[in-house]
Amino acid sequence: MHIDELPTPALWADLDVLESNIAEMARRLPGNRLRPHVKAHKSTTLATLQYEAGHKGFTCATPREVLGLAQAGLGDDLLLANETVDVNRLTEMATSGARVTVAVDSEATITAAATAGIKECVIDIRVGFRCGCEVEEAHGLAELARKSNIGVRGVMGYEGHAMGVVDLERRRELMESAMERLIQAHEVVGGDLVTGGGTGTHAINTWVNEIQAGSYVLMDTAYTEQVDQPFRQGLFLQSTIVSVAEKFAVCDAGLKAQGMDHGNPSWSGGEVLFCSDEHTNVVPDNTLKVGDRISLVPAHIDPTMAKHQSLHIVRDEQVIDRWEIDLRHW
Amino acid sequence: MHIDELPTPALWADLDVLESNIAEMARRLPGNRLRPHVKAHKSTTLATLQYEAGHKGFTCATPREVLGLAQAGLGDDLLLANETVDVNRLTEMATSGARVTVAVDSEATITAAATAGIKECVIDIRVGFRCGCEVEEAHGLAELARKSNIGVRGVMGYEGHAMGVVDLERRRELMESAMERLIQAHEVVGGDLVTGGGTGTHAINTWVNEIQAGSYVLMDTAYTEQVDQPFRQGLFLQSTIVSVAEKFAVCDAGLKAQGMDHGNPSWSGGEVLFCSDEHTNVVPDNTLKVGDRISLVPAHIDPTMAKHQSLHIVRDEQVIDRWEIDLRHW
Repeated sequence: MHIDELPTPALWADLDVLESNIAEMARRLPGNRLRPHVKAHKSTTLATLQYEAGHKGFTCATPREVLGLAQAGLGDDLLLANETVDVNRLTEMATSGARVTVAVDSEATITAAATAGIKECVIDIRVGFRCGCEVEEAHGLAELARKSNIGVRGVMGYEGHAMGVVDLERRRELMESAMERLIQAHEVVGGDLVTGGGTGTHAINTWVNEIQAGSYVLMDTAYTEQVDQPFRQGLFLQSTIVSVAEKFAVCDAGLKAQGMDHGNPSWSGGEVLFCSDEHTNVVPDNTLKVGDRISLVPAHIDPTMAKHQSLHIVRDEQVIDRWEIDLRHW
Repeated sequence: MHIDELPTPALWADLDVLESNIAEMARRLPGNRLRPHVKAHKSTTLATLQYEAGHKGFTCATPREVLGLAQAGLGDDLLLANETVDVNRLTEMATSGARVTVAVDSEATITAAATAGIKECVIDIRVGFRCGCEVEEAHGLAELARKSNIGVRGVMGYEGHAMGVVDLERRRELMESAMERLIQAHEVVGGDLVTGGGTGTHAINTWVNEIQAGSYVLMDTAYTEQVDQPFRQGLFLQSTIVSVAEKFAVCDAGLKAQGMDHGNPSWSGGEVLFCSDEHTNVVPDNTLKVGDRISLVPAHIDPTMAKHQSLHIVRDEQVIDRWEIDLRHW
């Protein structure tokens, strides 16, 4: 099927770009130097390609992602890089047959994990503005975990506030001050893992021994402005022009079909004015007519993928496959 | 089940509020004075309550909403208040067994509808900043539709730019200048229907003969600032505190679980700092501990509902039912 025959709105990935991004990252961070974050794409099919590229461990944001990867046979080494006190879900993860490690940052999260029979953890250090304990708490929490029969594999710290910074030196400064704290914590916690980072810092964060990048596979538009990114934009939102006015045209892919937290989508054929629930208004460089197709580039892939049931796989404008986005929801 | 036992994040509705909002709207706009817009909630269960309150016709934004309502036996009078040139989907609608009327605003949309065997349309007039033809084009398009064996039921015009304006007089001005154009178009188009409006203008738009309100059932936070709104907030996002820092706490409901286009959610227990993919950071008025539950109020219900598989129905803090959000996707 040609891409222009897809019912719209339809999410599609350029397979050449996707494969080249995966190969380039596997060259830069081979094997377990990369622990791909599946929250970016939420697809076990795509995770399988990353596995085949040599990355046997995965990073997850939700218990559902952990369980889905386990069921798909990708459970060699799964890290829930997030806190939970949901004992039912922790128990499901502990009995999933996968090797499951969870992030903990408090007595409550350790107690919940121990109650559920979770066997391994990392101590999550607050190096950014989200979860994590203080460096000074890390030793005590590691001791508590070990006393609770949970092996401590090391430390985790996500420098999210550095990730999207375009200026390389500023990004490096933010990352380094975050990583100094992570290394301090690692010295008192022990263990083999120092895990953190993401697509934005994958090329400069030499402090961690594994990088939790996910966006690199399909790329966010913000990252493409960073000079040290070798990855290309691979995710697009196919839409149909349904109405044409004197000064703008309206397509049928709106904000319900894409993540808006990084702003409007971009479009190679002109200016994007705004998105409403089911529409995006654009000012085309050249005349558009009703029925024409345009491909928007969503600004943030993670929440965009989470809104779609499936991802259409395109090569040379032909839709050659359709992958379920099967790790969605909670 | 008590609401605090729900796995989180979980979307829930206060049934008392929902029922009272439906009853209040049915009192204000009884029967076919209201054509409830299902894009706000995307649930055939909720649509059934609106049907039982006397509103036999529905407004839809997508073919999928039309087909889902038809399959649920709610197809007395369905209006696709949106343009499409997808002949396959139009054909599905035309053969669904429901009475289906589509919005058209161009030769291309009329031709597609005629090809698919659609029997009725409204001429969509551009009174805002989205779809619709100019007033001057309305007569010609109505003639073309009739020649194409499509009955013309009247005109539609959605004054979206007025809808969220808090100041009542400004909102009225914007609405009135939009409706003057709609009425001009109606004079040359004919037909029984003058359809438009929404929750924001339901109390002041006396120009149309049916109002396409949807948000009133569960309410957007923006509308609650309008002095002429009798409806109460009924949609909440239950979350669990998973990490507590010195100056903020982090819950497990982030931007993948709610629409962000109207800004951050609100919360009765303190300040909302920001949302990231799977977390929201809050500054609580009173101390929170890991494991505590908080209910956020998403700013925009339409895209929030579209992100969840189901809506939990709560009365007196007990989860008494779970409704599928079955009109999602495309």
